[in-house]
Parts: sequence; C-alpha cells; structure tokens
Amino acid sequence: MKIIIIGGVAGGMSAATRLRRLMDDAEIIIFEKGPFVSFANCGLPYYVSGEIAARDALLVQTPESLKARFDLDVRPVHEVTAISTEDKTVTVVSNGESYTESYDKLILSPGAKPFVPEIEGLAEANNAFALRNVPDLDQIMQAITDETKEAVVIGAGFIGLEMAENLHKRGLNVTIVERAPHVLPPLDEEMAAYVKNELVAQGVQVFTSDSAIRFEDEGHTIVLESGQTLTSDITILSVGVQPESSLAEKAGLTLGLRGGIVVNDKYQTSNPDIFAVGDAIVVKQQITGQDALISLASPANRQGRQVADVIAGLERKNQGSIGTAIVRAFNIAAASTGLSERQAKMANLSFDVVHISGKDHAGYYPNATDIMLKLVFNPESGEIYGAQAVGQKGIDKRIDIIATAIKGHLTIFDLPELEFTYAPPFGSAKDPVNMAGYAAMNIAEGLSESIQWHQLKDELAKGKVLLDVRSPGEIKQGAFPNAINIPVNELRERMVELDPTTEYIVSCHSGLRSYIAERQLKQHGFNVQNLDGAFALYKTILPEELIYV
Amino acid sequence: MKIIIIGGVAGGMSAATRLRRLMDDAEIIIFEKGPFVSFANCGLPYYVSGEIAARDALLVQTPESLKARFDLDVRPVHEVTAISTEDKTVTVVSNGESYTESYDKLILSPGAKPFVPEIEGLAEANNAFALRNVPDLDQIMQAITDETKEAVVIGAGFIGLEMAENLHKRGLNVTIVERAPHVLPPLDEEMAAYVKNELVAQGVQVFTSDSAIRFEDEGHTIVLESGQTLTSDITILSVGVQPESSLAEKAGLTLGLRGGIVVNDKYQTSNPDIFAVGDAIVVKQQITGQDALISLASPANRQGRQVADVIAGLERKNQGSIGTAIVRAFNIAAASTGLSERQAKMANLSFDVVHISGKDHAGYYPNATDIMLKLVFNPESGEIYGAQAVGQKGIDKRIDIIATAIKGHLTIFDLPELEFTYAPPFGSAKDPVNMAGYAAMNIAEGLSESIQWHQLKDELAKGKVLLDVRSPGEIKQGAFPNAINIPVNELRERMVELDPTTEYIVSCHSGLRSYIAERQLKQHGFNVQNLDGAFALYKTILPEELIYV
Repeated sequence: MKIIIIGGVAGGMSAATRLRRLMDDAEIIIFEKGPFVSFANCGLPYYVSGEIAARDALLVQTPESLKARFDLDVRPVHEVTAISTEDKTVTVVSNGESYTESYDKLILSPGAKPFVPEIEGLAEANNAFALRNVPDLDQIMQAITDETKEAVVIGAGFIGLEMAENLHKRGLNVTIVERAPHVLPPLDEEMAAYVKNELVAQGVQVFTSDSAIRFEDEGHTIVLESGQTLTSDITILSVGVQPESSLAEKAGLTLGLRGGIVVNDKYQTSNPDIFAVGDAIVVKQQITGQDALISLASPANRQGRQVADVIAGLERKNQGSIGTAIVRAFNIAAASTGLSERQAKMANLSFDVVHISGKDHAGYYPNATDIMLKLVFNPESGEIYGAQAVGQKGIDKRIDIIATAIKGHLTIFDLPELEFTYAPPFGSAKDPVNMAGYAAMNIAEGLSESIQWHQLKDELAKGKVLLDVRSPGEIKQGAFPNAINIPVNELRERMVELDPTTEYIVSCHSGLRSYIAERQLKQHGFNVQNLDGAFALYKTILPEELIYV
Repeated sequence: MKIIIIGGVAGGMSAATRLRRLMDDAEIIIFEKGPFVSFANCGLPYYVSGEIAARDALLVQTPESLKARFDLDVRPVHEVTAISTEDKTVTVVSNGESYTESYDKLILSPGAKPFVPEIEGLAEANNAFALRNVPDLDQIMQAITDETKEAVVIGAGFIGLEMAENLHKRGLNVTIVERAPHVLPPLDEEMAAYVKNELVAQGVQVFTSDSAIRFEDEGHTIVLESGQTLTSDITILSVGVQPESSLAEKAGLTLGLRGGIVVNDKYQTSNPDIFAVGDAIVVKQQITGQDALISLASPANRQGRQVADVIAGLERKNQGSIGTAIVRAFNIAAASTGLSERQAKMANLSFDVVHISGKDHAGYYPNATDIMLKLVFNPESGEIYGAQAVGQKGIDKRIDIIATAIKGHLTIFDLPELEFTYAPPFGSAKDPVNMAGYAAMNIAEGLSESIQWHQLKDELAKGKVLLDVRSPGEIKQGAFPNAINIPVNELRERMVELDPTTEYIVSCHSGLRSYIAERQLKQHGFNVQNLDGAFALYKTILPEELIYV
C-alpha cells in the first residue's frame, strides 16, 4: 500500500511512525511544505527569551533519522499544490519543479495558519510577524537586535501571552493589545484578571477592548481604536488561527465550521481514500456535541496515531475533544478544560459556578501557594462542564484531574470521592478539587445559595445588605463600601443585631467563613446568600470598587 | 440532638464541623484522649528536621477557636473508657476523675495506633519511639540532643521513610531496617528500588529482609536477625499501624479484619446509634471489593463529613477507597494508587503490566526530569487495577490522574483519550499517562508481547536470545551479558544476521526503541518479545547482573 501524508508535524508524523509500526511493507511518503518536520511547535516562543537555548532542541527529528529508524520517505520543502481524487494523485512542487505522486490512501495534516487581520498599513509593516514555524521564528530572531526596545503583541491568547513573556524576558518593553474585554479570551473574565494583574505587575502594558486599526511608519507606529498610539520595533500578530484547508477545498472535499475539513469518526473526509487529522479538521466538542475547531498538540498527536490504526484495519473512533490548555504568565499559570462559563451560557446550558480558594499543598508546610479554582457544572445532574484554575503551582495537576473526571463522566458528586496523593509537600487531605466538589454539592443540594461577583451590584441595588464576616484587621486592608461587619466568630452572639426581614449577602476573604456564616444564618431563618469567591476574587477583578482606609 | 464524638483529629473533627453546619441546634461534644485536636498528623515528621519550623504550624485548631466558630464543646485530655450501649452513655476519665455523658448518636473516630513489635529488650529501651501525635513528637525532639548521632528507623513504610529523611536532614546518621524484601512494601519491588537507590545515594544505610531481634544496652545496641549489630542513639518504630478498636470491642461492637470496626455503608456499627469513621474502620477496597484497612487522611476526612451528612438525614453512602499515597525520599517522590502487582497477584486477578519511561514536561524545555510509571491492568477488559510512579517531579500529578481514572472506571483504552494541559513547562503533547495507555493497548491488542524484568533470566535459560538495540556508545556504559547488539536504526538492513528459528527478547535503554524493533521483527515473521522497562529498569533493580566494560 502506498500512503501519502501531507504535513510532517504532530498529527502527520504521529500517523507516519505508527503506520510503519503496523505496516512494515507500506510505502510512506511525507510531504512537508516547510524545511523542517516534527519540530517542537509549542516550544518556539521560549527560544525568543533564550529559555530554550539551542535551536536544535526544537528540531525533534530529521528526514535522515526518520529514514533510518522508520524507513520513511520524508520530503521537506515539498508543497502539494493539488489533489486529483479521480487519478488518486497529488501534484507536488519543489525547487520550482512539479511532479505527481500516486497514493492508495492520503492523509491530510496541514494544521492551522495564523489569522492575519486586515489592518491598514499592515502590508507595509516590515516588523510584524506571526509565529507558526521555525522559519517564522528565525525571522523574528533576526529582527530583534540591540536596538529593538518596544514590542507590541496583538492578541492575548495563549501564543500571544507566551510571546509577551518571552519578549519581556529578552529585555524588551512589551505592550499587549487584545480586542476582547480581557486577556486570555478562552478563560472567563474574573479568572483572566489574575493573569492581567500578573502581566501588569511584571511591567507589561495591557490594552483590552481595543485593537490596532492602522500601522504607520512601516509598522513602527500603531494606532489603536481607542486613539492610543504605540511605538513598535517589533510586532507579533497572534489574533488566532484558522484551518489550513485551501488544498482540501480545491480538491472538492467538504469543509465545515470556519473552513475546517469535515471528517467522519474514522477521520475520513468526504472522499473515502482521503483522511484528515489535526488542527485543520472539525471535531466534536464532547461536552456539547457541537462542532468545534481545537488547535492543540495533544489531540493532533492522538488523531495521527488513530488514523494510522484505522488505515491498518484496527478499530478506532474519533471520540472528539474537550479542549484542555495551559499557559504560563511569568510567575503564575492559567489553565482550563471543557467549557468556560461564557461557553456554557452560549450553549444555553443550565449551569452553576463555584470558585474555590485553596493551596497547592498543605498550608502548614513551607511555600504553599494559592490556587483559585473555578468549576462550571449542572446543578441538577451534577455534570461537570468545565474548570479553570490560576496560581503559581499545581495548576496543571488540578485541571488535568478535572479533565480526566470529565472524560470519565464523573459528576460533582464524585469529586469528593477522589483520593489523591497526600503528603505535606505534594497536596492536602482535602484537595481543592475535592473542595470544589463539596461546594458544588452544597449548591446542588440547596444547602448554600451563591451569587457571582458580577451580580453583586444588582443584588445590593435590590435592597440586600452585604455582611462581611472578616476580622476588623482584614477590613482595614480593604473593604466593600456599605457593608456591615460582624466577624464570623462573633456571629452567634451578635445575630440579634441583624434584621430578620432583610436579605443578606455574606462575604469573607476567600469564601470559607462566609459559607459557615451562611449556614448559621440560614438555620436561624435568615434569607442569605454567599458571595462566591468572596472579597479576594472581587478585589482581583474590581479593585477600584473597594474602599481602602 | 446530642452527639458525642470520640477522637478529635481528621475524621472526628470533619464530622463535628459539618454537623454544626447542618444542625445548628445540636449539642456536639468531642472527647479527645490527647492534649491536641485537629493537628496536622502528616506534618509531624517534617518538624524533626526543622523543615516545618514552628510547632504551632502543626496545631491547626484549638478548643477555643472551635468553640468560637462552631460552638463545639471540645474536651481534650478526656479519655472515654467505656460505652454503655443500653443507657446510651459514655464513661469519661479526665484528671483522674470519671463521669458519664449521654448521647443520642455516638461517632467513633479513634484512629489507628502504631503497631509495637515484640522484641526482646524493647521494654528496657529508653530511646525507642513511635510517632503518632504531638506528645510523641515532643518526646522525640527532647531525645535528640547534640550528642545524638546514630538513628535507627525500624520499618521502611511511608512514615519510616519520612522519619529517615528528616532525621538525616537533622544531621543524624540514619539506618533503616525493613523486614520485607524491599523498602516501601506497598510498592512493587522494582519501583521501590528507585527509592532504595536514592536513600543509599544520600548516605542512608538500608537493611532489607532483616529485622531487629534484640535490643541491648537500654536500646542503644540493636541486634538484627542477620547478625548485624547497630548502634542507636534514637530508634523510631514504624512497622505499621492497627485499628484503635479496644473501646469498640469492650462495648460489644462487631470487629472485623485485623480488629477493624465493622460498619455498614452508612458508617453504622453493629449498634445503630453508634457510627465509626477513619483509620479504625474496615472499608471496602473498591477495586477488589475485599475488606481493607486504609490509614490515610483523605478518606478519613471524607468519611467524617459523610457520617455527619448521614446523621443529618442527607443521602450518603461509603463507596469504599482505592488507596492513594505518596512519599518523598530526598530528591524523588514515590506514589501509588489502587493495587500493586503483588496485590493483583494475591487477589488472583488476570493482569498485565507496563512500565513507561517519560518526562515530567517536554524534553526540549529545560530541566525535564525522568518519570517511571507502572500500570497494572486487565488485558482483556482493560480495567485499570493500579499504578505506581517514581521520579523527581510530576509524580503526584500522574498518580492523581490515574486515581481519578480508576474512580471513573476508565480503562486503558481511555487513557490515550485524556487531554491534559500542555505547554512546555508543564507537560508533553503525549503525557506518560497517555503513553501508558498506548503501551497497555498494544499488549491488549496483541501488537506487543512483553516480559518483565523478573522473568528475563528464566526466559533466556529457555534458549531465547537477548537483542539489545541500543547504540554501541550506550552499550559501553553497561550491558546485559550474552546479548547481541544491533542498533535499532541498523536493524532493517541487518535483519539477515538474525536467525528466524530463534526466539528473541529485545531491549533498549527505556523501552521505546525496543518496541519499534519488536514491531519490525514481528512483521518479518520473527518470534520476539519486548523487555518491559528495558535496560534502565533492569539496572535499577539488578545492577550486579550487568557487565560494565
């Protein structure tokens, strides 16, 4: 059998090597448009700062090593320009020459390409780059000289933030411009606020709800929609990616959502001898069952291996993806899995939310750091829709656990049952994931009612009263305006000071004491709700609404 | 309602505080035999080295703080000496005085006590201590002076290893004596070998398959079964724990496995008004369905909360435990969840095993460290029985993920589907957990056959030939005796050198290349098996059987 693979990174190369292990006598040719195959895509930004010091470290395999170990015919700098589905051939252009190659099975793994926004003057900018591959990286590295001082990153998604951090570590002044109301648009606003605060604390300038509308001076001046003008020695365009599906389109293959290649659950395109994997295909978002484009290395690698299995006759099925991602922003990490609150809302799901403040390991053991964990769930069925977390340590672990729980169809009622490794340096007897389950169960079972940070002003406007149960010492370091204060430990005695006809919203620092107060008041007949995430979360996203004495 | 709780740590205190949040008008009395409640049990060893510097850090709550916040009547240094199930009263002794207290519901959370071995001369030893609580810790701290040089730790389980490390960090010479054939008996031999090697590398003396048979000189000389004599200035006894069930037994409650208190899935003992939780109860090992004693903080806390829910009328059920644990041994961590290979064998399960060498994060990003991950599974159903991991970083994460997978009844076929957070500092596109799933699937689907390290000698004795596919440079740094060597990249050309009638076992360094070679040879008709874990694992456990040129 002769198999042609178009695209020699992630999905394509996973398919090729697995095919060889299953079909030793197959002829396998990989065409890669660029000069490198199987490079470490996700490592590129870290070379900018020098954190990854050797460029060679990014080049995982070479055509020679792949020939020797897997007998693969890898042809870099070979662009497939056409597919003839009738003849079952592809037209290949290399070095200005064109030839055709026949196939029995064809696998498309073209990936996604950076979306280039239409901005006036961008074509004349000589200092604006997107980052997709090693040649892009080489261009960026060449453009950075000792005179390069000001960097502008347009788009504050995962790659944008990585580039911002690495340019900053390289010594540049970095400004981020994001069209959405907050950085890291895949996360919800209040969780992204932790990241924004860290960026600002590290000296990165952040503009949100703003975008570049004009490049001037060959790109060295950028005019924003807000009227602000930025000076740029180098500009990174990272406003998102789109499926690289022009070849598939030309071949008449069916495209779907935003130009993604449509495949069935065996990775077959509309032509049964042509398969497709990776960032270019439309996948099923497993939680909603809706079509989605998910550009992540992990699903791409899995799909590559699975399509090889399918071609070799093994029973495999693309089960879809939930989407799990993480980004480091200086000293903190931010991660998510499944649906955000915004996505749950857009999908018209019935959902509730809890925010849990925890520690990465036992608080009594040195160097424990804060974790803020958010869970989005269905309060009736307990289904977990998604989770997000931010903090210095252990963020990857909590989100990976919840990603596993989602894949295993565990509900909020199962999260407390999870038994994790616990010794003081590694965890807690009650991990934040367990606690998120308990908190969600309290909501689901009606033991606790909560309101979210963005609802507070409206609820207070209705005449509810905010009861802050922190200590007077804490109040002095920042407080809600117009809140009354009774420390939780005095609440039992001082409950008489409260008006049974008033509706109260309780808050403390992180939400633990306010929940205790809520339960106390509820059992004494008060109408009371808990401010989820409490003062600490509110202060992160709306510090300007608080008072400091 | 009047509720009495016996035991004010973990399970007992979780029950008390949850009860208060659910039943504000209940009278709740907690009797604790010792002087402290709600202390950080698992932190005690770390105070010995000073890593946890303040003793107060270990004292999480006090009777006063619990009174103020939860209106709990906490009575430390109050020992319950008898339960009258007919009168529904307990007899309490404090300060030499005795009184009775009535209850509507009684919760027993007495914990487990250190097993004290019967050794000649132990009664006369004035320097031998077990570590269960703060007074024990205080005794140990008093016993360590500037003259204390030699420490002997008897029992190399989790607490034994923590004490060994912390005594060593304190500056003592530490010797460990373990009766079992290897340290960390809950782990399998080859995984525990990594821990032993680390202990030895750090200068800890380790005796396995040996035990103390006599204490002389008031405990300052310890004679081992092997005849070896040890000098000890301080001796830690950590040979295991047993349920503290004497009070329950006196009250006529049904006891089970090794004296554990028998409860139903509502935590009710044989007396319906008496409940029990924590280390003292017999639980169901969820994987085998068999009775088990599991002394871990996390299940104890969960049980405490659940028994409160049961008493308050909420629908809860003890679903059992799988047992997940971790220990740090100097620079490495070792963790396990579910069943070990030994336990799977003892339970007569049909199982197979894979060992995966991976990295905690992308190998191309700085400071990636090795992870050795072992998976025990049913090759027919794919059920995951258990996992173990050792390494410097990310061990807790991988075992927590697999613990979650086990609770969610995910199989080996689901592990590759798990989508984890991946950015170079945090993980890999193919995480070791994904890879373990792939490797197990290869076994289950007959694509790969493996033999384990402990089978190698027998298999070679049958006439099989070991084919080492590492490079000549690697061979020079240590090799199997009598192996033939063909580097994997030359195998395709040099396959003619092999004899089609010979059975081969392939090995490389970590098992990746040998699997590639295995697939190549299998497809060319050879009868071949893969040495699971390969040279690296073998060298860890049986270095003396290898040759070094």
